[in-house]
Amino acid sequence: MARPTPLSGFPEWLPDGRIVEQHVLDVLRRTFELHGFAGIETRAVEPLDQLLRKGETSKEVYVLRRLHDEADAGADGSDRAGQLGLHFDLTVPFARYVLENAGHLAFPFRRYQIQKVWRGERPQDGRFREFVQADIDVVGAGDLPYHYEVELPLVMADALGALRALGVPPVRILVNNRKVAEGFYRGLGLSDVEAVLRGIDKLDKVGPDAVAELLVAEAGATPAQAAACLELAGVRGDDASVVERVRDLADRHGATTDLLEEGLSELGALLLAAAERAPGVMVADLKIARGLDYYTGSVYETVLVGHEDLGSICSGGRYDTLASDGATTYPGVGLSIGVSRLVSRLLSAGLVRATRSVPSAVLVAVTSEDGRSRSDAVAAALRARGIPVEVAPSAAKFGKQIRHADRRGIPYVWFLGDTDAEGATAPDQVKDIRSGEQVPADATTWAPPEQDLFPRVVPGEPTA
Amino acid sequence: MARPTPLSGFPEWLPDGRIVEQHVLDVLRRTFELHGFAGIETRAVEPLDQLLRKGETSKEVYVLRRLHDEADAGADGSDRAGQLGLHFDLTVPFARYVLENAGHLAFPFRRYQIQKVWRGERPQDGRFREFVQADIDVVGAGDLPYHYEVELPLVMADALGALRALGVPPVRILVNNRKVAEGFYRGLGLSDVEAVLRGIDKLDKVGPDAVAELLVAEAGATPAQAAACLELAGVRGDDASVVERVRDLADRHGATTDLLEEGLSELGALLLAAAERAPGVMVADLKIARGLDYYTGSVYETVLVGHEDLGSICSGGRYDTLASDGATTYPGVGLSIGVSRLVSRLLSAGLVRATRSVPSAVLVAVTSEDGRSRSDAVAAALRARGIPVEVAPSAAKFGKQIRHADRRGIPYVWFLGDTDAEGATAPDQVKDIRSGEQVPADATTWAPPEQDLFPRVVPGEPTA
Repeated sequence: MARPTPLSGFPEWLPDGRIVEQHVLDVLRRTFELHGFAGIETRAVEPLDQLLRKGETSKEVYVLRRLHDEADAGADGSDRAGQLGLHFDLTVPFARYVLENAGHLAFPFRRYQIQKVWRGERPQDGRFREFVQADIDVVGAGDLPYHYEVELPLVMADALGALRALGVPPVRILVNNRKVAEGFYRGLGLSDVEAVLRGIDKLDKVGPDAVAELLVAEAGATPAQAAACLELAGVRGDDASVVERVRDLADRHGATTDLLEEGLSELGALLLAAAERAPGVMVADLKIARGLDYYTGSVYETVLVGHEDLGSICSGGRYDTLASDGATTYPGVGLSIGVSRLVSRLLSAGLVRATRSVPSAVLVAVTSEDGRSRSDAVAAALRARGIPVEVAPSAAKFGKQIRHADRRGIPYVWFLGDTDAEGATAPDQVKDIRSGEQVPADATTWAPPEQDLFPRVVPGEPTA
Repeated sequence: MARPTPLSGFPEWLPDGRIVEQHVLDVLRRTFELHGFAGIETRAVEPLDQLLRKGETSKEVYVLRRLHDEADAGADGSDRAGQLGLHFDLTVPFARYVLENAGHLAFPFRRYQIQKVWRGERPQDGRFREFVQADIDVVGAGDLPYHYEVELPLVMADALGALRALGVPPVRILVNNRKVAEGFYRGLGLSDVEAVLRGIDKLDKVGPDAVAELLVAEAGATPAQAAACLELAGVRGDDASVVERVRDLADRHGATTDLLEEGLSELGALLLAAAERAPGVMVADLKIARGLDYYTGSVYETVLVGHEDLGSICSGGRYDTLASDGATTYPGVGLSIGVSRLVSRLLSAGLVRATRSVPSAVLVAVTSEDGRSRSDAVAAALRARGIPVEVAPSAAKFGKQIRHADRRGIPYVWFLGDTDAEGATAPDQVKDIRSGEQVPADATTWAPPEQDLFPRVVPGEPTA
């Protein structure tokens, strides 16, 4: 087999990169659990017809076929009954899980879910075909109070804030409220709200002039209405003045509606809570539209400060109908972190690094192959006290064993005490191979300093 | 959407089952790291031609097709170039990872890998189409000393032993050595070693008489040779006497060879080390054949004591060629735990249970919606001290809030102190809803007993 090459869009990390990813995942999980979210995991596949219910993403789905079931793979895609596809997000599977298990869950049900998803999109920087998402959602049976729309982004602020200690840059969570946008557009007299949102969604990509043309051409807006929509999209701020500015704007354009007022009061409450509980993190940004049409209240996007080019690393919103079984409707609110996108940037920009690439704090040297069991016993004694350790691969010269530890990044090498002719055994010694310092040590009491115990993730020296 | 039903072969757990699985995975990960194994994760897909190199499993592979790429899914399966399939184990992807990254890894390279794999087999009890494996392997560049064949099953013995505290039954690791079997068969004069192994592999399923017939019919054995092979397969024991019994057997049949002696000396060393480091866990069982033809030394299978019907929950062995890039050959030794198989039995037989199904130890009650921020502040104070907590969904009557905690399995409910007309605030109170005991509490100092802090996994009351 020739040396294989990576598959574009399917990222993999070397062991030190995986340590970074694993630490990020551990911090997220811990934060989610501190906030009372239960972890679930769903299967990787869903029936194809469920995955295709949202038209937009249908092109991205990977369909599965068993190699020897040639028949069920109708090449024209017409025979979909029973076909399975890989999930492209964690929301569709979660909605199905809620319906399937509703009788066993207590609502409002809080869950986190950290799994890979797959999309057959063209790979780009920060956009992968296989990637890890970390989602939190709260879902109610029948109803779900607004305060969860305040809580959920604050949980993410807490989780992403906890990553700061690893060297992850600060984030800014941008919030908007569909009711504000829709209320304002309708107040202006625009009825094709979807079309307006689609246009506004392109603002960062194509600029205001092109969006104004789009709104006229596709959303039936007059140039004045288009200008008002762009004025709304330009509102941004992190305090209650945002609400006042939108109110003034609506007044000027005669666009005040009950829906707008409801949205503004929600947005105002969110900004107030955010200023108290996560100062400086949340910003109202009235141009945030989110493409997906099932959001019905708050919508969120998150940028890594200084890395805005990466796009949103944590997005979501409120949906009045996450799932429905006919009898009961399940509204929800949730956000999803693009873990692979985040970790890929952390690594490529050198923002963080692992202090070493192996778990082992100690390499126990082997004096002779016959005496390997003595080294094994020392290793077992250290492990029993929670110290990660491995035994040297061979009874090579000590210089070679030390170089092996050095190459693997293991900070300490343990040497067994010699036994003299009378059978008296000298104490063992442990050497810090970074400083060269070597001291007598007993495997039942010695421990490395806490900072050397396991690999840690620390701020790196950014490359650019 | 009607209520969906589970997909056969794709197991999912309710939140309390997931807590069990997550605890099992955490214990495995911690043990592997204590033994110096670095965690890696590989993509879920491999090029189809790589997956099909082992002929036997080809039928089980799930092939991927992008929904809008109808063209690349040649329905006759002939156009395989560039096609991707889901990996069916973690060994094939690991071998590819080693070749791809050899220049960045220090050998012998120790890695663990915990991921889902997929096989399109017919689902049965304990046999799934999607399941989690937890693998450890050591791989060398060029060579790999025998002592790793002793170490690796002992790491698994340690990991599976650590699960005992959760209520997992003890395990028995059955070991054999290909060199013993092959040396003996060749000494008998049988040259089609593969055919003999295939026959012996069926012993538990079809019994000795049928195997004897098979050996005669398919491995070219005489009835006397077949009987000798069955005699070897009947040897079992956990001490050095096993080696002596095989030696005697070989003597009697004139089947002693250098290869047999080499295998016996390896097996003897393994049993000796095992008796010292994991007494009672490892048993030599000379009928263990393992179907896969790439094993070249030790082979391992593991049964859960009292649940032998489940089949092996941890298998593996030594392979002289895990991978090769022409210039260098990478020998390895590894074992793989079938986590889903194990967890599915733990849950279905009631062997273990989670003490609750949510992370939250505390539900902070809400006195009035206007005062929700006071409850949020208490929750934040508790969380900052590592206590998992959630805030009540609504300012319902306290009885209802307590019932909500009870339904979710949250042991403590926190009540805010009332503020009287003069603005003086009474102390908060916390109630253990299991005992009904309610005491004054301060969010900056109170903590639940350690055993209530997070859900734990404890022995259950087995159902049968």
